[in-house]
Amino acid sequence: MGRALVREPQAFLLDEPLSNLDAKLRNQVRGDLKRLHREVPVTSVYVTHDQVEAMTLGDRLCVMAGGEVQQIGSTDDVYHRPANPFVAAFMGSPPMNLLPGVVGTGALHLGGAELSAVPCPDGPITVGVRPEHLQLGGAQADGAVPARVDFVEPLGSHVLVTALVDPPDPTRVIVQAPPGTALEAGTPVGLLVPPERTYLFDAETGDAVR
Amino acid sequence: MGRALVREPQAFLLDEPLSNLDAKLRNQVRGDLKRLHREVPVTSVYVTHDQVEAMTLGDRLCVMAGGEVQQIGSTDDVYHRPANPFVAAFMGSPPMNLLPGVVGTGALHLGGAELSAVPCPDGPITVGVRPEHLQLGGAQADGAVPARVDFVEPLGSHVLVTALVDPPDPTRVIVQAPPGTALEAGTPVGLLVPPERTYLFDAETGDAVR
Repeated sequence: MGRALVREPQAFLLDEPLSNLDAKLRNQVRGDLKRLHREVPVTSVYVTHDQVEAMTLGDRLCVMAGGEVQQIGSTDDVYHRPANPFVAAFMGSPPMNLLPGVVGTGALHLGGAELSAVPCPDGPITVGVRPEHLQLGGAQADGAVPARVDFVEPLGSHVLVTALVDPPDPTRVIVQAPPGTALEAGTPVGLLVPPERTYLFDAETGDAVR
Repeated sequence: MGRALVREPQAFLLDEPLSNLDAKLRNQVRGDLKRLHREVPVTSVYVTHDQVEAMTLGDRLCVMAGGEVQQIGSTDDVYHRPANPFVAAFMGSPPMNLLPGVVGTGALHLGGAELSAVPCPDGPITVGVRPEHLQLGGAQADGAVPARVDFVEPLGSHVLVTALVDPPDPTRVIVQAPPGTALEAGTPVGLLVPPERTYLFDAETGDAVR
């Protein structure tokens, strides 16, 4: 970076500059880059696999997959209004959960549970919900998607619970639970999905429906 | 791992097994290791610089620095009851903020603010507070530590605000703020420190006082 800076270039191209650093140093240098860019506000193209780097450093994000642009926008755009399930699952850590659902008879049917109707045509649909918007209830809780705990990962400030939705669609789902949550593998739980927090994608084309 | 497994060893020694993977794959393989360890519950010693791996995979964590054991315990122990500032700042991402304070005249003096008294002898003290427990208030807010915004990092689910406490002790502090928080560099803010959420360390020895 130093050698490039003294030449006063018209643009920087950074190709995964932090990928070989350990976690702690990576976070620190990320802040240094942010400060450096403020002092030397030269247009920079920054390539990374790490969505945290993309979200925190980028003014404009371009999410690519298989050589094709999936979405261009601010961090808020790609996080809160993802264009398709790829972008939805790529931004955020842990990623958004994606579940197969069906819209019909005035309701959204999701893994054995019925949620209030959503404004889209009847038929199969992909339902996205972020780990921080899911809640764990009892296995018999009203409107909850029945599932079983796979494993639990304590992280101090919160606990990540990975659960498997009951058959016939045993999708893996991650729930961000309060600190202290302790659940044995195999424990039946109910996943409470707040309808207003769901993202809906066309099951065939993947385009965002809402 | 596969080659080691078929030999049915009495113990595994894993030395930073995930450090060369990109962020997404690292999270995925972390889950795979958790599941594998459940199926083959052989004693494993896992060396890592990544505190998330340590917290989520370890039954017992041993935090080392400079070749010396700093603390041994569960994830909850080292996160919620850190033995010294090194452990406090090492566990959690972003790490705990550490600020120089002084106990005296029945109060805790912290960067120009006065907090209610704490149960420890008068004199200098190191005060720890996690980013998720700090709140941003107005620059003149009652009991707030005056600071200025350095930079802001949007992360979708929340925003990390890095601020510099006003002189004479311009400590760098990270606050986990609600999504949508937007603040220009240089904006004066007040850091609200909930006294019951602080960690106190002896300023000389570094031993946890509370």
